Amino acid sequence: MIYFDNSATTKPYKEVLESFLTVSSEYFGNPSSLHSIGGQAERLLTQARDQVAKLLKVRPAEIYFTSGGTESNNMAIKGAAQLNRNKGRHIITSSVEHASVLAVMEQLSGEGFDITYLPVDQNGRVSVDDIDKAIRKDTILISIMQVNNEVGTIQPIAEIGELLKKHPNILFHVDSVQAIGKVSLSLYKNRVDFCSLSAHKFHGLKGTGVLFVREGARLAPLLSGGNQERKMRSGTENVAGFVALAKALRITMGKSELGITNMKKIQSSLRKELNEIEGVNIHTPLEGAAPNILNFSLEGIKSEVFIHALEQEGVFVSTTSACSSKKKSPSKTLLAMGIAEKLADSSIRISLTFDNTEEEARAVITAIKKCANQLRKVMK
Amino acid sequence: MIYFDNSATTKPYKEVLESFLTVSSEYFGNPSSLHSIGGQAERLLTQARDQVAKLLKVRPAEIYFTSGGTESNNMAIKGAAQLNRNKGRHIITSSVEHASVLAVMEQLSGEGFDITYLPVDQNGRVSVDDIDKAIRKDTILISIMQVNNEVGTIQPIAEIGELLKKHPNILFHVDSVQAIGKVSLSLYKNRVDFCSLSAHKFHGLKGTGVLFVREGARLAPLLSGGNQERKMRSGTENVAGFVALAKALRITMGKSELGITNMKKIQSSLRKELNEIEGVNIHTPLEGAAPNILNFSLEGIKSEVFIHALEQEGVFVSTTSACSSKKKSPSKTLLAMGIAEKLADSSIRISLTFDNTEEEARAVITAIKKCANQLRKVMK
Ligand SMILES: Cc1ncc(COP(=O)(O)O)c(C=O)c1O
Ligand SMILES: Cc1ncc(COP(=O)(O)O)c(C=O)c1O
Repeated sequence: MIYFDNSATTKPYKEVLESFLTVSSEYFGNPSSLHSIGGQAERLLTQARDQVAKLLKVRPAEIYFTSGGTESNNMAIKGAAQLNRNKGRHIITSSVEHASVLAVMEQLSGEGFDITYLPVDQNGRVSVDDIDKAIRKDTILISIMQVNNEVGTIQPIAEIGELLKKHPNILFHVDSVQAIGKVSLSLYKNRVDFCSLSAHKFHGLKGTGVLFVREGARLAPLLSGGNQERKMRSGTENVAGFVALAKALRITMGKSELGITNMKKIQSSLRKELNEIEGVNIHTPLEGAAPNILNFSLEGIKSEVFIHALEQEGVFVSTTSACSSKKKSPSKTLLAMGIAEKLADSSIRISLTFDNTEEEARAVITAIKKCANQLRKVMK
Repeated sequence: MIYFDNSATTKPYKEVLESFLTVSSEYFGNPSSLHSIGGQAERLLTQARDQVAKLLKVRPAEIYFTSGGTESNNMAIKGAAQLNRNKGRHIITSSVEHASVLAVMEQLSGEGFDITYLPVDQNGRVSVDDIDKAIRKDTILISIMQVNNEVGTIQPIAEIGELLKKHPNILFHVDSVQAIGKVSLSLYKNRVDFCSLSAHKFHGLKGTGVLFVREGARLAPLLSGGNQERKMRSGTENVAGFVALAKALRITMGKSELGITNMKKIQSSLRKELNEIEGVNIHTPLEGAAPNILNFSLEGIKSEVFIHALEQEGVFVSTTSACSSKKKSPSKTLLAMGIAEKLADSSIRISLTFDNTEEEARAVITAIKKCANQLRKVMK
């Protein structure tokens, strides 16, 4: 079995599961309890927060634990919109954001906010110039992802951050769910106010995530109640899950440098081999893309059909983002990049992780060739 | 060590951790993925939902998985308020609800909703008559907990449900976080529209919960995005956590009958013994309380001091609800019951689970007596 669908989800590291197990069974206290069983849990939570902060090069007080990337995105965008609605109601985003950003924008649009959805170029990239032009007096928030989950395009976060230095009142949210460990980001330098992470994308556990909230950037909470997470995210903390998240992040950051080199090599062999197959169109840009994603279409063969054929060969890839894969409508991202609907209907996403090998890549290419030949024969 | 703080959180069952581990490591796929690794995860999620539905005697389509009791409460109340704001803006609740209900009410009050907080009698119970009188033409929602988390009082859910049969347009939310497995509830018969559960209160994992949403009762989602959970709760599903939740619920329901009998016995011995200690006031009513909670004050000794003394004897109990325990203000619930502030400042909550023993209870009584004597000497 070759699992090349790591942008959908990753397999948790063994050490992550071990940490989870130990904390859940031996340190099961409620961090809010006054006694020492609670105190132990609270200390573990503090340690996890300190570790995550250190790895992201920010302050512990800027780390909020959440139930995942979707909650982090909802919390940042709804929270910022809610708190600043009297300052202005204009928000800028791109047309290729993840559903958990776009759906929130739609909701806010129904509540009287005005949303500008920026277009992207043929590489799936927004233009900083477009952002500059879109900024208005009533703009309160800009939300741009760091790495696109479907094609891997890296957005010009540093340049947007630079631009926003002239606009101190505009909040800047970055969805780094697909980027962490694969593409670096300097939160302070790039003037990021909010940044979302999701543990299951870096070999942590599903249902755990992080929202970075820069000191001074304010939010209305999404979950109200017992005032956990310094009043910003109520609910008994998933201590074991957050300890596991910290561990996953530490291991990921440790693997990152070599892993990126390795994935780049594999990505470029895959690209070379795919380019030699008749009818292949590669959608992931050659420059400025994450090292782990390669999106392509095989003309005339529907994604779904192709994916199931590859599965017969023991190769697991995906059509588009996992959560959209059952919709059966062509990828919005590819259409926004100007790719024809028919070609978008044939798109396949390969997504790697640190330890994948050239050998696996060769086997995948062999499988792709075999399936392409077989399916083309059937089509004729 | 005797852990008598099971209303704050419980220790996960061994089988729950095993299930979590197996699913996380062997079935790590994203349920939304089209391939069989995703399909396996999706099937496990479906099974978990079916199991939970069966145990709650409702339909699988009425079960939504969430990140815990706080999210379930926020989702039900905010979601119902949001969707029905054009029908009316009046909501009825009690003054002894959990923070994750009361804080949401405060927030809604700031958004133009009118909230009626019903008083409780000296037993901590709301009166159905008061609810009847509070109902107005513009009442859209009533939210009442099944079992109070501080004193264990059972609210008259069946009677409220009966009353609401005359008011088909009013939605009824019940927070059953402290009740499940300890006090039974018939969701259909009692005309409940929404019901919240939290796994870590019944030996499941922190960060997982359920919201029951009766067929036909509608909500606006709190988390928007990839449209998981039939569009009602976006975010990649914590499959392993929800499988573990289903297992915890199955074991809990299996233990429930004998466990209740056992806890009732222990509760009544504790009550008898405590009553013989000078200066003890028991706040948990003799009739109509959950079998697992016993709340009392020892006159003249502050809760915090007492808790730490008991801890020295290896006994773990709490002051009030865990999430309020660091606030240091007296329990709102006790004040609402008409208990004097000074006495409320001395309150202690013992909370049991199914497998606790009479032996443990005797040890706890011995510890309480010892600490009471010592502390009283110091006070003099
Ligand atoms: C870019 C991006 N943002 C947000 C999310 C949502 O995160 P989660 O799966 O934790 O809900 C995902 C993945 O699904 C993603 O790829
Ligand atoms: C009655 C009640 N409702 C809701 C909650 C919140 O649930 P959770 O701890 O999962 O956030 C709790 C416990 O903290 C509770 O006791």
